[in-house]
Amino acid sequence: MSVQTQVLEALQWRYAVKKFDASRVIPDDVWQVLEQSLVLAPSSFGLQPWKFFVVRDLALKQQLLPHSWNQSQVVDASHVVVFAIKKNITAADADRLVARMAEVRNVPLESLQGYNNVMKGFLEHPPAPLDAWATKQVYIALSQFMVAAALLQVDTCPMEGFIPMKYDEILGLPELGYSSVVVCPAGYRSPEDKYATVAKVRFATEELVQYI
Amino acid sequence: MSVQTQVLEALQWRYAVKKFDASRVIPDDVWQVLEQSLVLAPSSFGLQPWKFFVVRDLALKQQLLPHSWNQSQVVDASHVVVFAIKKNITAADADRLVARMAEVRNVPLESLQGYNNVMKGFLEHPPAPLDAWATKQVYIALSQFMVAAALLQVDTCPMEGFIPMKYDEILGLPELGYSSVVVCPAGYRSPEDKYATVAKVRFATEELVQYI
Repeated sequence: MSVQTQVLEALQWRYAVKKFDASRVIPDDVWQVLEQSLVLAPSSFGLQPWKFFVVRDLALKQQLLPHSWNQSQVVDASHVVVFAIKKNITAADADRLVARMAEVRNVPLESLQGYNNVMKGFLEHPPAPLDAWATKQVYIALSQFMVAAALLQVDTCPMEGFIPMKYDEILGLPELGYSSVVVCPAGYRSPEDKYATVAKVRFATEELVQYI
Repeated sequence: MSVQTQVLEALQWRYAVKKFDASRVIPDDVWQVLEQSLVLAPSSFGLQPWKFFVVRDLALKQQLLPHSWNQSQVVDASHVVVFAIKKNITAADADRLVARMAEVRNVPLESLQGYNNVMKGFLEHPPAPLDAWATKQVYIALSQFMVAAALLQVDTCPMEGFIPMKYDEILGLPELGYSSVVVCPAGYRSPEDKYATVAKVRFATEELVQYI
């Protein structure tokens, strides 16, 4: 199978799972790749204004259920990934990134001063609230995670239908300085999920893609 | 090569290209897959509150350059994808989606009334401004596009550094009811792009992924 076919088939195969098979767990070696799909996600300036909280404990998942419009995916999925933005991002986060850049690339910190200044200029005078900016970045990570999962034949279900404040409280995110913005249970579809076989609905390509 | 290795290598290979090879064009068969990666992107309720404008014309790309912080990627890349949100989304968009669902799935429109009502309830009383909601969905499409591109060894460079109002004006988006939110040139890295070989900088996995 060509890579082209492989990619197309994975994107066609993916759907928002309604019913996960609660008995199936994502194997460690597969999860390692999915974890890296989160870590390697691109973000504006490379600032990574996020953290990914992974819930596997059944009791904890059950606590999240009533705050998830009772969607069973958060209980039945193998791994529930809670995508969170970092709150109160400041110039210190730019310093933290360039310190890491200097370390990873083995270059002097001074050589990154210009880049640091550009980031600080943005962070100190953002064109829109930084929480909104960080949230958009998180959606990049969410999507990269879902595509990687589809390629590995792991099912997902992106969820905006949950109460972030309740999630934050249950998972202890405020103390850590993070706030949940979107959730993605991951695991394996149940053979009983009738949504697995219904046709994917998209508007016509000509309506969605316009060449200028 | 296992799919796991393939996915990891693609995500490692991807970087935000600074300098594209202006002489290389994405072949049609490869572009078809990338186009479908846009069309097949998931969105909240499946509403697809977006349109993807693709610029290939050199003169038009040059017009965009001064409104892109003079980043040469918008001129040198083979295809410049302008990700736009649909403005003024209303209950009519829910109607349009269920009409399409009825068509694609060959089911009676009445059977989708409940789903339509849920969407309309959301659209009529959104928890946040609909433009912000649509923008988040667009970032899902952006990321799916970038991952698909990386797998096909097509380079990309996500760009928030542009003037949406100027882009909209040049591309005639307001008349169509759309507004640009993020841009992604796609093509092939120049052999001269020194950023291709520098190490990717990410915070430590333990800092980014937390198991609860």
